[in-house]
Amino acid sequence: MKIAIAGAGAMGCRFGVKLQSAGNQVTLIDNWAAHVAAINQQGLTVTTDDGTDHVYHLTAVAPQAVTGEFDLVILFTKAMQMDQMLQDISGILGNHPAVLTLANGIGNVETIERHVPKSQIVVGTTVWSSGMPGPGHIKVTGTGSISLQAVVPTEFADFSGLLTTLNAAGLNASQADNVMAAIWKKAGLNSVLNTYCTLFDCNIGEFGALPNWRTLNDAVLNEFEAVAQAAGVAFSAQDVTDLIAAQFSPETNGGHYPSMHQDMAHQRPTEIDFLNGYVAKLGAQLQVPAPTNAILAQEIHAQEALKGIS
Amino acid sequence: MKIAIAGAGAMGCRFGVKLQSAGNQVTLIDNWAAHVAAINQQGLTVTTDDGTDHVYHLTAVAPQAVTGEFDLVILFTKAMQMDQMLQDISGILGNHPAVLTLANGIGNVETIERHVPKSQIVVGTTVWSSGMPGPGHIKVTGTGSISLQAVVPTEFADFSGLLTTLNAAGLNASQADNVMAAIWKKAGLNSVLNTYCTLFDCNIGEFGALPNWRTLNDAVLNEFEAVAQAAGVAFSAQDVTDLIAAQFSPETNGGHYPSMHQDMAHQRPTEIDFLNGYVAKLGAQLQVPAPTNAILAQEIHAQEALKGIS
Repeated sequence: MKIAIAGAGAMGCRFGVKLQSAGNQVTLIDNWAAHVAAINQQGLTVTTDDGTDHVYHLTAVAPQAVTGEFDLVILFTKAMQMDQMLQDISGILGNHPAVLTLANGIGNVETIERHVPKSQIVVGTTVWSSGMPGPGHIKVTGTGSISLQAVVPTEFADFSGLLTTLNAAGLNASQADNVMAAIWKKAGLNSVLNTYCTLFDCNIGEFGALPNWRTLNDAVLNEFEAVAQAAGVAFSAQDVTDLIAAQFSPETNGGHYPSMHQDMAHQRPTEIDFLNGYVAKLGAQLQVPAPTNAILAQEIHAQEALKGIS
Repeated sequence: MKIAIAGAGAMGCRFGVKLQSAGNQVTLIDNWAAHVAAINQQGLTVTTDDGTDHVYHLTAVAPQAVTGEFDLVILFTKAMQMDQMLQDISGILGNHPAVLTLANGIGNVETIERHVPKSQIVVGTTVWSSGMPGPGHIKVTGTGSISLQAVVPTEFADFSGLLTTLNAAGLNASQADNVMAAIWKKAGLNSVLNTYCTLFDCNIGEFGALPNWRTLNDAVLNEFEAVAQAAGVAFSAQDVTDLIAAQFSPETNGGHYPSMHQDMAHQRPTEIDFLNGYVAKLGAQLQVPAPTNAILAQEIHAQEALKGIS
C-alpha cells in the first residue's frame, strides 16, 4: 500500500516505521525542515525500550512538496494544525485516498470533511505512544492498539483491507462499535486532566489529591454529558470520572504531567479548542449551555497569551 | 468616644492612630501575639510617605482578653475571619456598641448579624490603604475616604455623631446613598481582577493586555448583574467593566498585584468565598445560576490546596 503520514512527529514516525517494515511504501510529511532533512540524510533513528538505536530509511518531504498517488493518508498532526495540513497536501487528496486520523480532541471529522468526502474518512483512538528527543530521532516504549471506524461505514471502500494492512504492521487495530463515543470519552478525560493540570501547574496525582477535585471534575463532565446527549453521542460522566480516578495513583499516571501541560511548558499552542472549547461551542449551537467548559477554554487561552504563545 | 478596632492589621492600625490622635480612646484587638506585644512594649511605628517614622502609644490586646464597654467597634479583619473575631470579642458586644465594617467582599452584614442586632450595624467601603512591614510597624501612603451607611438607617442611633467622630479624625467619611450597591461594585471589580490575576499569576496590566480579557470579565460580571438583580441590589456590569478598564495603565494600577495574589503568594487563605464564591452561593439560593463564578471559586480553592493553605 502507498501510505502518506501527514504530521511525522513522534507518533507519525513510529507508525511510519512499522508500516514500511511490513512492506508498505511510506512517505513522511512534516513541516519541520530540520527533521525532514535529518530523515532523508541520516535516516530515522529509533531508540527502543532496551536503549538500543535502530536506523530506518524512509522518505520525508515538506507538505507543500508532496506529490503522487496514495491509498491511505494518516493524519498525525495535532487537531489545530489539521486544517492547514490538509490544505497544504491537497495535491494528494484528489485520487480518493482513505484518510485516517487518530488525533485527540473532538471535531476532527468536521475539519477533514472540509477537504475530503465523508465516505473516505476513518477515525479512531489509540493508546500507542512515542517521544521525540530531536530531529530525525524518536524514542518508543511499550506497545499499543488502535480502535477505529469509518465515519460512514456503509460507504467506506475496503475497511477490512485497511484493518489487514494495519495489523500486518503489528498495530493491533480493531473495529470500534461506536468510535464517536470513544473519542468523546477520551476528550472528556483530557478536558479534566489536561486542562486543570495545565491551569494549576500540577501533575495528575496532585490534581487527584485536591479536596475539591470531584467538584471541578463534575462541572466539566456534566456539561459534556448534556451536550453529548443533544448531539446524539453516548457519554457517561460517571464512566469518565471512574476512568479519571483510576489515573491518580503513582502506579498508573499520578506522576505524569498531561500533554497540554507539556505544550504550555514548551510554548506550543494547546488543543483546548478541540476539548473544553469544542464542547462549549457545540453546546452554544445546540442551545445546551456549557459555561464551565467555555470559561476553562478562555482561561487556557489567557495562559497561552501570557506565555507569548499565539 | 471609646473605640475598639477588631483586627489591627495595617488598616486597623492606621485608623486607630488617626482616631486616638483626634482624642478618642482606642483599643487595638488582634490575634498576632508578636504584633500585640510590640505595640504594647515599643509603641506602634508609623512610616509616612516622606520616609519618616513616628511612634504612637496605643493599647493592644488579644481578642479573648478584651473587656470593657465601647461606643464603637470597627471590624478590620478579612471577611473570612470576621465570624471567629466576633465570637472571640462577644464580651464587648453586649453593651450595644455600633459595629462598623469596611471589609471587602459581600456577605459581611450576614456574618455580623449573627452576633449583633441589625440596628447597630454600619457598613461601608474605603479607599484608604496601608501596609505592614512587620509586627508593631505600619507604612502609610496617600489619603483616602470612607462611604458608609447604616444597615437600617431608620433604626441606627446616632449616624451623624459617627460621621463627626470619623471626620474629626480626618478620615473623610460621608454617607452613602446605596452602600450595598457600592459593596457589590467593589466586589465585582475584585472578583475579576483579584481572581484572574491570582489564577494566572499576573498583574493588573498583564490581565488588561490579554486579547480575551473582556470575555473573561463579562462571564463573571454578567452573572453578578443577574444575581444582584434577583437580590434587589443595583449593579451594572458595564459600569464595573469601565472601572476595571481604568485600572490597566501603568499610571493607575497596571503594575499592581491585587491583594488576593499577595495572599496566595504569602500562603494566606483568600477572600474568594466572599467574592465569586458568594455570588455563586447566593445565585444558587435565588435560582439564578452563576456557574462561572462557581468554578472560579473552586479553582482558587484548588490553588490554595496546592499551596498547602487551609
